[in-house]
Amino acid sequence: VDSPSEENAGFADRLQAAVEDKDTPCLVGLDPHLELLPPEFASARDLALPRSARAELLGNFLCQVIELVAPLVPAVKPQSAFFEALGADGVLQWERVLREARRAGLIVIGDVKRGDVASTAQAYATAFLEGAGERDAGARCDAVTLNPFLGADSIAPFLETCRRVRAGVFVLVRTSNPGGADLQRHGEPELSAVIADLVARWGSELPELTGECGLSGVGAVVGATHPAELRQFRERMPRSILLLPGYGAQGAKAEDLIEAFLPGRAPRGALVNSSRGITAAWREPRFAGRSWRDATRAATLEMIARMRKVLRAR
Amino acid sequence: VDSPSEENAGFADRLQAAVEDKDTPCLVGLDPHLELLPPEFASARDLALPRSARAELLGNFLCQVIELVAPLVPAVKPQSAFFEALGADGVLQWERVLREARRAGLIVIGDVKRGDVASTAQAYATAFLEGAGERDAGARCDAVTLNPFLGADSIAPFLETCRRVRAGVFVLVRTSNPGGADLQRHGEPELSAVIADLVARWGSELPELTGECGLSGVGAVVGATHPAELRQFRERMPRSILLLPGYGAQGAKAEDLIEAFLPGRAPRGALVNSSRGITAAWREPRFAGRSWRDATRAATLEMIARMRKVLRAR
Repeated sequence: VDSPSEENAGFADRLQAAVEDKDTPCLVGLDPHLELLPPEFASARDLALPRSARAELLGNFLCQVIELVAPLVPAVKPQSAFFEALGADGVLQWERVLREARRAGLIVIGDVKRGDVASTAQAYATAFLEGAGERDAGARCDAVTLNPFLGADSIAPFLETCRRVRAGVFVLVRTSNPGGADLQRHGEPELSAVIADLVARWGSELPELTGECGLSGVGAVVGATHPAELRQFRERMPRSILLLPGYGAQGAKAEDLIEAFLPGRAPRGALVNSSRGITAAWREPRFAGRSWRDATRAATLEMIARMRKVLRAR
Repeated sequence: VDSPSEENAGFADRLQAAVEDKDTPCLVGLDPHLELLPPEFASARDLALPRSARAELLGNFLCQVIELVAPLVPAVKPQSAFFEALGADGVLQWERVLREARRAGLIVIGDVKRGDVASTAQAYATAFLEGAGERDAGARCDAVTLNPFLGADSIAPFLETCRRVRAGVFVLVRTSNPGGADLQRHGEPELSAVIADLVARWGSELPELTGECGLSGVGAVVGATHPAELRQFRERMPRSILLLPGYGAQGAKAEDLIEAFLPGRAPRGALVNSSRGITAAWREPRFAGRSWRDATRAATLEMIARMRKVLRAR
């Protein structure tokens, strides 16, 4: 689907091209909680079935979601935990989903939140950014989320891999869950501010990861439920792409997110993610009576329309 | 191998019984770097082989290591990254290794360092502590390492699972890698001290996880290369089992670790891990000319003897 030149571009440029092509910074999180699968896939919860069959149903669901949203959004963000919960059979479906998403022209952001000492971090970089030992490397992510708790040398192997395979990272800076503040707001300046400065520095130290679009492949995850903090993080990381989870189910509204974007006509500098708001939309009363496929598509279009309206009003 | 009553005991009591049975707090880390496999398993690096065959070689190596060390140590600590680096085929071997270690009577501490929002953390707890969706649940860990960056609600699902399935956790408090200080020493008190206090509190709030041995199943990972800090962490977490990585290859000596142990005749309150020092011992000049199996066994016995000597000199 991508032209060779696009494939050869760095992560930031490929992402920005996809955002402009679809005219939206919205992405769809693929968090397949077994409990939230549509009734058609309910046997995935049936412990009497072999695990491989259960995992395959989960993969079938996600491949259909991918088919539905691929024409609408630039990227998907699969969450590895829900695949790992079905062991090796689940990871086989993870690989299937990565292949299918890339085949559909989507950029894949693996939500893996890994963080470990350097030699172990290198193994994770291989696992997620280089196709996990397969020769064709089709089952790989274009970028991953990372946990910075172990410091600079735990991130460095990923950055080196990004340079080599033109991938990206999103470092957790501030998370939107209730316990996010427990550690992340510790100290003066707050720990999250320290991490934000590190993210900006890692990006500056690796100019190869900054694209023609002016953005760096060293991005950050910033919880979208703290809009007052967004401006501060935007200023501390002027070239980073900010990945904003928490739209919809976790409570953030489109207007709350505007501070994360950079000036300009096209959406630039931030990505807005919704997971359950899309893949579990069929459960919401306003979609009652509609198929899960209709609900998924309608919820995606709704989110895109809301963000577009707010971005155009700037 | 375990009697039913031992199987029904909580994690802390099962671990302490195993430590006393083997009379050592030493455990063997299973970190199968492809580059560090003995020559007999070198084809695991051969990209011309199918990935499943490469992964199987890695599993064969580790099952032999397990057979060698099972009579000597109470527990093993497999590192998931090196399995994930071979994708679904690697995770199949991860499951094989967990089964094999448990069958050999070893306690399994999964070094997975996960940390995510609550619903995702629950999926990880299922993956690692409940057998990843398999009915027999044989491929499960007795405990896992966790990254606390996302705060209390990211740990809670693991603690609840521990209560239900009598498992344990080791929360990263201070890591021994060079970048460990980047975030972990931030603020006053240092972030690591804040986390240590949280670990102690989580343990107190869940008395069911404290065994008859007086130790809690809510443990901590404390980098063994900072001996001066060990006493402080021991005081802040009086009932936690401290998992000390970094013996051997990472530079810590037996004498440096003594502050982590609680008083008493038997080793109690701390575990000492060596990974490459054991599984890559065959590369060390002092074992030149010996088989990798001999070197593995000799290095394990050496480590046990050194720790025993230091513990007895207390």
